[in-house]
Amino acid sequence: MSILTSYEFSRRMAAAQAAVRKNNLDAILVFSTESEPAAVRYFSDYWPSFETAAVLIPADGTPALIIGPESLTYAASRSKLPKIIQLMDFRESSQPDYPGSTLPKWEDIVSEYKLKKIGICGWYLFPYMMMTDLAKAMGGIENIVPADDMIRPIFMKKSAGEIACLKASARASEAGFKAILENIKPGMTEAELCGIATAAMTAAGAECTGYPIWCCSGPNSNQAISRPTLRKVQCGEIIHFSIGAKIEGYSSSIGRPVVLGQCPDDILKFLQVGLDAANMTFDVMRSGVKSGDAARQVHDFIRAKGYGDAILYGPAHGCGQMECEYPFLETSSEYMLEADMTFMQDMFLHRNGMGFRWEDGLLVKAEGPAEMLSSYGRQINIL
Amino acid sequence: MSILTSYEFSRRMAAAQAAVRKNNLDAILVFSTESEPAAVRYFSDYWPSFETAAVLIPADGTPALIIGPESLTYAASRSKLPKIIQLMDFRESSQPDYPGSTLPKWEDIVSEYKLKKIGICGWYLFPYMMMTDLAKAMGGIENIVPADDMIRPIFMKKSAGEIACLKASARASEAGFKAILENIKPGMTEAELCGIATAAMTAAGAECTGYPIWCCSGPNSNQAISRPTLRKVQCGEIIHFSIGAKIEGYSSSIGRPVVLGQCPDDILKFLQVGLDAANMTFDVMRSGVKSGDAARQVHDFIRAKGYGDAILYGPAHGCGQMECEYPFLETSSEYMLEADMTFMQDMFLHRNGMGFRWEDGLLVKAEGPAEMLSSYGRQINIL
Repeated sequence: MSILTSYEFSRRMAAAQAAVRKNNLDAILVFSTESEPAAVRYFSDYWPSFETAAVLIPADGTPALIIGPESLTYAASRSKLPKIIQLMDFRESSQPDYPGSTLPKWEDIVSEYKLKKIGICGWYLFPYMMMTDLAKAMGGIENIVPADDMIRPIFMKKSAGEIACLKASARASEAGFKAILENIKPGMTEAELCGIATAAMTAAGAECTGYPIWCCSGPNSNQAISRPTLRKVQCGEIIHFSIGAKIEGYSSSIGRPVVLGQCPDDILKFLQVGLDAANMTFDVMRSGVKSGDAARQVHDFIRAKGYGDAILYGPAHGCGQMECEYPFLETSSEYMLEADMTFMQDMFLHRNGMGFRWEDGLLVKAEGPAEMLSSYGRQINIL
Repeated sequence: MSILTSYEFSRRMAAAQAAVRKNNLDAILVFSTESEPAAVRYFSDYWPSFETAAVLIPADGTPALIIGPESLTYAASRSKLPKIIQLMDFRESSQPDYPGSTLPKWEDIVSEYKLKKIGICGWYLFPYMMMTDLAKAMGGIENIVPADDMIRPIFMKKSAGEIACLKASARASEAGFKAILENIKPGMTEAELCGIATAAMTAAGAECTGYPIWCCSGPNSNQAISRPTLRKVQCGEIIHFSIGAKIEGYSSSIGRPVVLGQCPDDILKFLQVGLDAANMTFDVMRSGVKSGDAARQVHDFIRAKGYGDAILYGPAHGCGQMECEYPFLETSSEYMLEADMTFMQDMFLHRNGMGFRWEDGLLVKAEGPAEMLSSYGRQINIL
């Protein structure tokens, strides 16, 4: 019933083990947390809650999922990797005691796998204390190197199964936004509207939300990253939604502004420029185009319309297991766009304390313009 | 309209600044992430999403909220601390470029606040790379010390406002569980039931869930920490729910097992032992009692009933802004229980691949047994 096959997970692990060998390492340790679960789920299908987790990918030999003291039954029920190691360093941040615990130590892993030099994926998340313990076991920090760049080429182009997951995520996200359109009334809180979307997405097959989804209304609408508040939505203001469902770990999203009642002309014009720029992004993101050039075309269009000051960041960012993953599409980006790369087209504009987001999943095709992962209408919703 | 007053936030900051001075530090840096937002929210009312955040608490002078490049409008709308500093080290893990950015550096903060020795709260979360950058600015790692133990005494006893938030969280959590009882049918997925609870909690005034809530059914019921799956719930099996709402940052929870249709006798007996142990926990957690002694009384009771092998951990854990925070209540715990400490009574038992949780908020009183934060019935729900 799953979209992703066991072969998919074997293929990923084989590619990662090849990268370990190519970089002359003995292993790569892939680290994840509750709110950054992507890398561990990518290789194991397990994703942590409360505790943290890692996947040890040796150059040769048996990969292992590493978890904390409380997650064994949960992890065993989900992990595609049969070998699971529990370490105290992966316990909850509240640091429970676990009286009588006899869990192994980093030294045991280093010895079992004969690790002399390893890489860390999730380098910018990896906790200082865990690094200290690991470095001691490894005989020094000089034996540990950043490895995100070694693994990223595997993530960056998506398989047919991954694209199917992202499309399913986009469909479930649409169900969430549709429920908002059907139920929204002035006086509902931003948080309540997010709850309605969550229920609709899980009823449509989502595991949960793909990230802490949000609604921003009125004076909150100028927030690029946000969380929903208890503010009651009103008529005649911008109310925008960032709604995303998780399907087998994959998180697409749908970003839409909504206006209840009369929409003032200046808001309508502002929203239309954003929508035109969002649509243009699909047209310019083509295989063989340099990423920074695509970003510049979209930003030039917005500037030509007189809204240059409303730009916050580049018009797209990578998307996969994290709704926002490497690489961003910025005017400074140097990489080439290739078929089967997936992004979120993400058009956030703000000016004079008012803003909005148009956002949809985007698949770069071998030829022609990018494909939109959702099929939901991109008209301006004035209800 | 808020439960928590500005005075509450001033009081916390004053207590923290006193702790900084008492420990002969120049400042404490309190660090938080999307999934561990408690400490930063405690001092600033801001909680990060996608990016990370910190609060700089100087011995004297103006405290500052530290955020990443994209969160300024969001943070400014929420932060009780007017001073906000943006640092690149707090950006998203996808490491966007931000072409043209001119954000300050750690060196600027160290120089402005004349920092010679600082403490870190959130020591076990703090990323290695951030520590490396900070240590460089501070002239060496020897000028940075763990500070969680210095700040914990402020967290551990709750104010009247905090207790009111936890009670409001318990009421909203009850609304979530009530919606499950009213809507659950065989064939619904675990994830769908969690979505129903989420919508009910946000409609009842919650900001969102207090943690990634879960439902575990049948063979999944033996998971102490979990996430909901797409498994369809069935009659005659244990289905247990961990449902928690967030109110002004505070996260209580309600844990209940449910059985649809006929409940086999062995399951009924198992559930009743857990319920009796859960009820007993409220009776033994009294002001002046040593924490480990309270835990032992509950575990002794479970062992006397013949279920000693079903115990996973101590019968309660601290609760406040995190649904699970320091301190745990284990048989090895040494601290004394005091009035106004808040816990989650957390009775998880599992045996033969089957388990359940009874959980409710718990307030230690100056006299007599602990108070339950929710008022929802603790009967065994056979529907």
